[in-house]
Amino acid sequence: MKQHLNYTMLCDFYELTMGNGYFQTGLGDQICYFDVFFRTVPDGGGFAIAAGLEQVIDYIENLSFDEEDLEYLRGKKCFSEAFLNYLRRFRFTGDIWAVPEGTPIFPGEPILTVRAPAIQAQFVETFILLTLNHQSLIATKTNRIVRSAQGRPVSEFGSRRAQGPDAAILGARASYIAGCSGTACTQADELYGSPAGGTMAHSWVQMFPDELTAFKTYCQLYPHNATLLVDTYNVLNSGVPNAIKAFQEVLLPQGITSCGIRLDSGDLTYLSRKARQMLDAAGLTGCKIFVSNALDEYLIRDLLLQGAAIDAFGVGERLITSRSEPVFGGVYKLAAVEDSEGNIIPKIKISENPSKITTPHFKKVYRLFDRDDGKAFADLVTLHDETVDDTRPLELFDPAATWKRKTFTNFTAVELLQPIFRGGELAYRVPTIEEVRAYCARQVDLQWDEVKRFENPHNYYVDLSQKLWDIKQQLLKNQR
Amino acid sequence: MKQHLNYTMLCDFYELTMGNGYFQTGLGDQICYFDVFFRTVPDGGGFAIAAGLEQVIDYIENLSFDEEDLEYLRGKKCFSEAFLNYLRRFRFTGDIWAVPEGTPIFPGEPILTVRAPAIQAQFVETFILLTLNHQSLIATKTNRIVRSAQGRPVSEFGSRRAQGPDAAILGARASYIAGCSGTACTQADELYGSPAGGTMAHSWVQMFPDELTAFKTYCQLYPHNATLLVDTYNVLNSGVPNAIKAFQEVLLPQGITSCGIRLDSGDLTYLSRKARQMLDAAGLTGCKIFVSNALDEYLIRDLLLQGAAIDAFGVGERLITSRSEPVFGGVYKLAAVEDSEGNIIPKIKISENPSKITTPHFKKVYRLFDRDDGKAFADLVTLHDETVDDTRPLELFDPAATWKRKTFTNFTAVELLQPIFRGGELAYRVPTIEEVRAYCARQVDLQWDEVKRFENPHNYYVDLSQKLWDIKQQLLKNQR
Repeated sequence: MKQHLNYTMLCDFYELTMGNGYFQTGLGDQICYFDVFFRTVPDGGGFAIAAGLEQVIDYIENLSFDEEDLEYLRGKKCFSEAFLNYLRRFRFTGDIWAVPEGTPIFPGEPILTVRAPAIQAQFVETFILLTLNHQSLIATKTNRIVRSAQGRPVSEFGSRRAQGPDAAILGARASYIAGCSGTACTQADELYGSPAGGTMAHSWVQMFPDELTAFKTYCQLYPHNATLLVDTYNVLNSGVPNAIKAFQEVLLPQGITSCGIRLDSGDLTYLSRKARQMLDAAGLTGCKIFVSNALDEYLIRDLLLQGAAIDAFGVGERLITSRSEPVFGGVYKLAAVEDSEGNIIPKIKISENPSKITTPHFKKVYRLFDRDDGKAFADLVTLHDETVDDTRPLELFDPAATWKRKTFTNFTAVELLQPIFRGGELAYRVPTIEEVRAYCARQVDLQWDEVKRFENPHNYYVDLSQKLWDIKQQLLKNQR
Repeated sequence: MKQHLNYTMLCDFYELTMGNGYFQTGLGDQICYFDVFFRTVPDGGGFAIAAGLEQVIDYIENLSFDEEDLEYLRGKKCFSEAFLNYLRRFRFTGDIWAVPEGTPIFPGEPILTVRAPAIQAQFVETFILLTLNHQSLIATKTNRIVRSAQGRPVSEFGSRRAQGPDAAILGARASYIAGCSGTACTQADELYGSPAGGTMAHSWVQMFPDELTAFKTYCQLYPHNATLLVDTYNVLNSGVPNAIKAFQEVLLPQGITSCGIRLDSGDLTYLSRKARQMLDAAGLTGCKIFVSNALDEYLIRDLLLQGAAIDAFGVGERLITSRSEPVFGGVYKLAAVEDSEGNIIPKIKISENPSKITTPHFKKVYRLFDRDDGKAFADLVTLHDETVDDTRPLELFDPAATWKRKTFTNFTAVELLQPIFRGGELAYRVPTIEEVRAYCARQVDLQWDEVKRFENPHNYYVDLSQKLWDIKQQLLKNQR
C-alpha cells in the first residue's frame, strides 16, 4: 500500500514560535540560507553516505497545515491569528540544493542548502535533519558492513529491533542504497523496492512433530528457495544431518541442487566449516551457508579472517540501529541572509570550540578526481559564484594550516550539490532506488582504500577556496 | 492531524512464507501461544519500563491486506492463490494479554502473550516486537534520565537525531510516559498529548542586528514564556548580561518575574553557577536556568553532584536513540500449542546457553508486594490456571539454585498480564497518556532503591511456581 503521512507537524515547536516571531516583526520574508553539514563520521570511519533526500522531497512537496493542525496551534495560545492564517496558505517557495543520495560525504561540507524566506527556511529544519541524519546513519553503517563481507551478499534483518516502524522501513531502504542485497522487511520492498526475502523461524521447526518433517515440508513448499534453519535443537547432530536428508529426499529427485542452511547461534566459524564438510561429503556443494546472530562489520571481518565457510550474511539490530554509534550529528546552520537589494550577507556562528565554527555564505562543493587513477582526492568548498576550471592548475591549502599548499594539474572537478527545488518547484529527476544503489557503489569505489579503512582512515581533504577562507577570517575578526 | 498508517505489510517476509506453509499443510488453524519477553535490561539497569501497547492495539485492530498488497505478494511467485484469498479476509481473531504500559518489567517474564491460530500468531511477531522493543527502550532510558534529575523537569528534545519520523513521534510519547515533562516535537503533542514547548535557536539571535534586540523582541512576543538562549556569542560577557537587560526592560515593567535562560554549550556547572549569581544580583531570582547539550543520566548526575545551578534539562540524542544501548532485545517465542481437544501442549526452545532456554506453557505473572513497606519484592510466573492466594504463606525458590527457598506471609499479589483482546475483540479500556504516566511513576516508586541504582542494581527475583518449574524440567529431560 503506497502511503504518505503528512509530516508538516513533525517540527520542533520552536520553529513555530520563531516563525510567529519573524512574521510579527516583519522578518518573515527575509531570504535566508541554511546549510546541513555534519562534524564527525560515525564509528571513526573515513566517510559517510548521504541518504534520505527522496523523503525530504516528499516532505517539501506535501508541506501544508490542515484545519485540525491550526486548531491545535490556536489552543497553544501563543500564535497570532494573522500567523495562523498565514500558515493556512503555507507552502515551500524556496530553493534547495543537495548532494545526490548515495554520495560519500565528509565532515564540514554542505550536503544540503536551503534558500527561502526566513519562516520557511527555519521551519523545515527538524524534518530535513531527522531524515538525512537517520538514513545517512544507516547507509553509512551498512556500507561498512557490506564492505566487510568482501562481496558476499548481506541481507538486512533488523525490523524487530528497529526504533519504530519508519526506522524499519526507511532503514531497510537506506541499507539497500548502501549495498545490502535485500531485506526481511516486506513493506520496504512494497514501498521502496528493496527486495524482501526470508526463510523460517525456530517456531516453524517446533510446530512439526520433528525437525526432519519440518525441513521436508518446507522443501516441498519452496523447492527453489529452501534455506533451512538448522540450530533449533543441535546444529551438527541434528540440524545439518536432517537438512541433508530433506535436500536428498525432496530436492535432488527434482534435479534441484541449489539450496541453503542458516546458522543463527553458536560459534559460526566452527559450525560453518563443519557444516560445509558435511554438506560437501553428501554431494551438496551447491548448498549455501547463510549466517546471522548479532553481526556487524567487525564480527564479519573476524569470521572471514578465521576461514569461516560462509556464503551470505543476515544482519539485524547492529545495522538497523547502527548500534555502535546510533546518532548521526547533522546540523542546520544559518550561512547567509539577503538584504532588500538581494545582496548576500554571510553569517557565521562562532564557538569556543574551533571545530564548531560554521563556514559562512552561499556555497558550492566540488569533488576533485585524479585523472590517472580516477580516485577522489579532495573536496573544495567555494563561493556560489566561483567556478573551478579543471583545465588549469589549482592550488589547494589546508584551512587550519594555511602554509600547507599544493598545486594540482591533472584532475577533473565535479560539482556535488544539485538543484532540487527552484522557487518551490521540483527541479530534479528523482532517481530510482536501483540507480541510487549503483551510483553509491561506483562512488565508494572512487574512494581510496586508505579512506575506506575501519581504523584510523586517511583524513580526506575538505578545503575552502581562498575567497571563501578570506571571508570567513574577516567575519571571525569582526565578531571579536 | 490524527493519522494511522496501516502496518499490515510491516512484517518479516518469513511470517508470510511460514503462513503460506501452515495454510497449505493444514496447520494454519492450530492454536498457538507465543510470549514476548526480554533477557537483559539496557545499560545494566535493574528494570525496564513497558511501553508501546497502545500502538500494538492500533495495529491489531487495523490488520488487513488490500488489493495492492495482494498484487505485490502475488508478484513474489511463492504464495498459493488459496493463501492470497485467505489473506484477503485476514483479521486477528485471537486473544492477547499484556502488562499495562508504564509497568516496570524484568528479564524472563512474559510481558505480552498471544493465543491465536498459527498463521495469525506467527504473523504479528514483527510489528509487536518492534513496537514494544522501541517504546520500552525509550521509556526505560527516559526513566533513568528523569530519576537522575532528582525532580527537576526533563524535556525531550531529540527529534532531529531520531531514527526516522516515528522514532521522533513515538519516542516522544514513550518519554512522556516514563517521566519527561514534555517534548519539542509538535506532532507528538498533537497526536499523543505529550506537551510541546520550545524557545529559540541560535539562528533567531543571528537574524537580528544584535543579541539584545533579538532578546527584547522575543520578550515582547512571548512575555509569559521567555526563555532566552544565551550562548550564541559569549555566555557570561554577552548572553547573560543581555538577557538580564531584556528581562529588566521588557518583563519587569509588566510585573512579570518568571522567565528563563538556556545554556547549550560550555561547562554547564561553571556557567550555570556564574549565571545564577548574575541573575540573583540583578534581582531575577525567579529566572530559571535551563540546560541542554548531549546530556544523559550520568552527565546530569555529575552536574548536580558538582552543585550546578540548574532548574530544568533538555535531553536530545542520547534519550531519543538511547545512545548508550540502542537495542531492546525483546523476543517472541512459541510457548505452547493446543491439540484438537483443546489440551495445551507446552513447547520449549532449548539452547546451549541456559539463559536462552525458554519457559514453556500458557502462563500468568504475579507481582508480590510487601504489606509493610508496600514495595515489590518478587515476581512469580505460574501456570495459567494457578492462583496465588496472598492470605496464605507462599514459598519461593530460585529457579537456578532450587535449594534457596524462602517463605513469605505478609504480602499482596497482583496479576500483571491484563486481557487486551478476546476472540479478536478489544477487551481493554486503553488508558489516557496521563493515566499511563501517573501509573508509571507510582509503580517505579514501588521498586526498592536498590533496584533503581544505576550501577550493580539488586537482581530482582523472577521466580517460577513449583508446577511450572517441574514442567520445564520435564521438557528439558525429554529433549535430551
